[in-house]
Amino acid sequence: MPNPPTRDSIISRVVRLMGAFDRTQPSMTLSMLARRAGLPMTTTHRLVDELVRHGLIERQPGGDLRVGLRMWELAARGSHALSLKEIALPFMEDVQSALGQHTTLAVLDRGSVLYVERLSHPDSPLDAAHIAQRMPIHASSSGLVLLAHSPTNFQAEVLAGDLEKVTPETVTDPAVLRRQLADIRQRGFIAVPGIGRTEWTGVAVPVFGPDNRIAAALNAIIPREDTGIPRVVAALVTAAHGISRALGAESPRRGFPVA
Amino acid sequence: MPNPPTRDSIISRVVRLMGAFDRTQPSMTLSMLARRAGLPMTTTHRLVDELVRHGLIERQPGGDLRVGLRMWELAARGSHALSLKEIALPFMEDVQSALGQHTTLAVLDRGSVLYVERLSHPDSPLDAAHIAQRMPIHASSSGLVLLAHSPTNFQAEVLAGDLEKVTPETVTDPAVLRRQLADIRQRGFIAVPGIGRTEWTGVAVPVFGPDNRIAAALNAIIPREDTGIPRVVAALVTAAHGISRALGAESPRRGFPVA
Repeated sequence: MPNPPTRDSIISRVVRLMGAFDRTQPSMTLSMLARRAGLPMTTTHRLVDELVRHGLIERQPGGDLRVGLRMWELAARGSHALSLKEIALPFMEDVQSALGQHTTLAVLDRGSVLYVERLSHPDSPLDAAHIAQRMPIHASSSGLVLLAHSPTNFQAEVLAGDLEKVTPETVTDPAVLRRQLADIRQRGFIAVPGIGRTEWTGVAVPVFGPDNRIAAALNAIIPREDTGIPRVVAALVTAAHGISRALGAESPRRGFPVA
Repeated sequence: MPNPPTRDSIISRVVRLMGAFDRTQPSMTLSMLARRAGLPMTTTHRLVDELVRHGLIERQPGGDLRVGLRMWELAARGSHALSLKEIALPFMEDVQSALGQHTTLAVLDRGSVLYVERLSHPDSPLDAAHIAQRMPIHASSSGLVLLAHSPTNFQAEVLAGDLEKVTPETVTDPAVLRRQLADIRQRGFIAVPGIGRTEWTGVAVPVFGPDNRIAAALNAIIPREDTGIPRVVAALVTAAHGISRALGAESPRRGFPVA
């Protein structure tokens, strides 16, 4: 019989193993994996053997381990992140071809912003908002847009929590953040220089789904010196309306915002 | 202590549970999940509780279960499927804007073709080659391109295996398939009407990675009556060269193919 779930169950060990891989370290040796996951070598060895048999981890020719395609397949096939991405992608392409800037799509998950899609040049110097990366809610334009349309008790919880200063300009004063949220609801967008990275301005607008509930934030990340924010907002709002309609939102909640 | 891996280990049960979700059934009740995974209700209940705690499965407001964003995050962050997609996507957008046709990117994994990216209109009638879906190697233009550049012992294994007739036109004669593979190596592309879906023609070209090893197949799926195959091949080859260079292939292996 399997063990009952405990703090140290097999599932939680597997989650620690899979979570040890990331963008900066997509492949590693068994001993490095054990170290990063904080698990004994014997346990790691045994679990990795089985994960390799299922294709969730792959052994590369040199022996290093990486996340297996089967893991991605299991996650992607039934995932609502994927259906959201599929619906949003054509509209995001429109934004990118209109603006030539980074364009991202993000959702709230487990208390932070999770980027589910991004279009940009592979060699761009922007080291943030990568696909499957997270940011604190208050330190990202997308996070603020998502929070502005979240239930008030969730807003209160976030504003009462730990508000990290990601850059010198990240706003961490709850009263100021509350005003920003009200602005977003009234104007339909936010544009904040230096919020997540000093050299960049984040611009974000809401995407709604069925029952006009917030579904995602559509965002452009533009160089700080770029003064064309009204144009960026216009492109984002147009695309966000299209995505919202495609997701089943009844109709855009308000007229065109004034940047 | 955890159990040693067995045919019925916790990991294999979790894989069965996660694999029960798919594009046609992205959310379901606990009892439906148990039935689709072939597991007893008590086991399913206990495992799902823990998977929900880790965010790998989510409970929706109505109580139905679906794949959690955390599952996608774990799979995507360290995944080479993702880095391949990120590198290929701008080139795929170029193809799509040049041709206005379905464009897919596929790899070989565990004996079949796995589609890792696709650009097309969300309301297109083409019901194949969805992201994270699989096809038999011999029944897809991408599969044949990937096979043509695979080691000869793997080619022999596939051609000696079970060759299913997916459509009336799917070639299942190993001798004919072998000639098609040689054609692909010589001409640099394949165009096959009705190979996977009767109404569509699959056109595919190879994408190479480091050491000029095959990395992926780039494909366009065009309506069967479309006679513009040379134009499609030109766009695909141009984009495939770009992706290959970005992946670190030394240089395109040969000149421009003749469609």
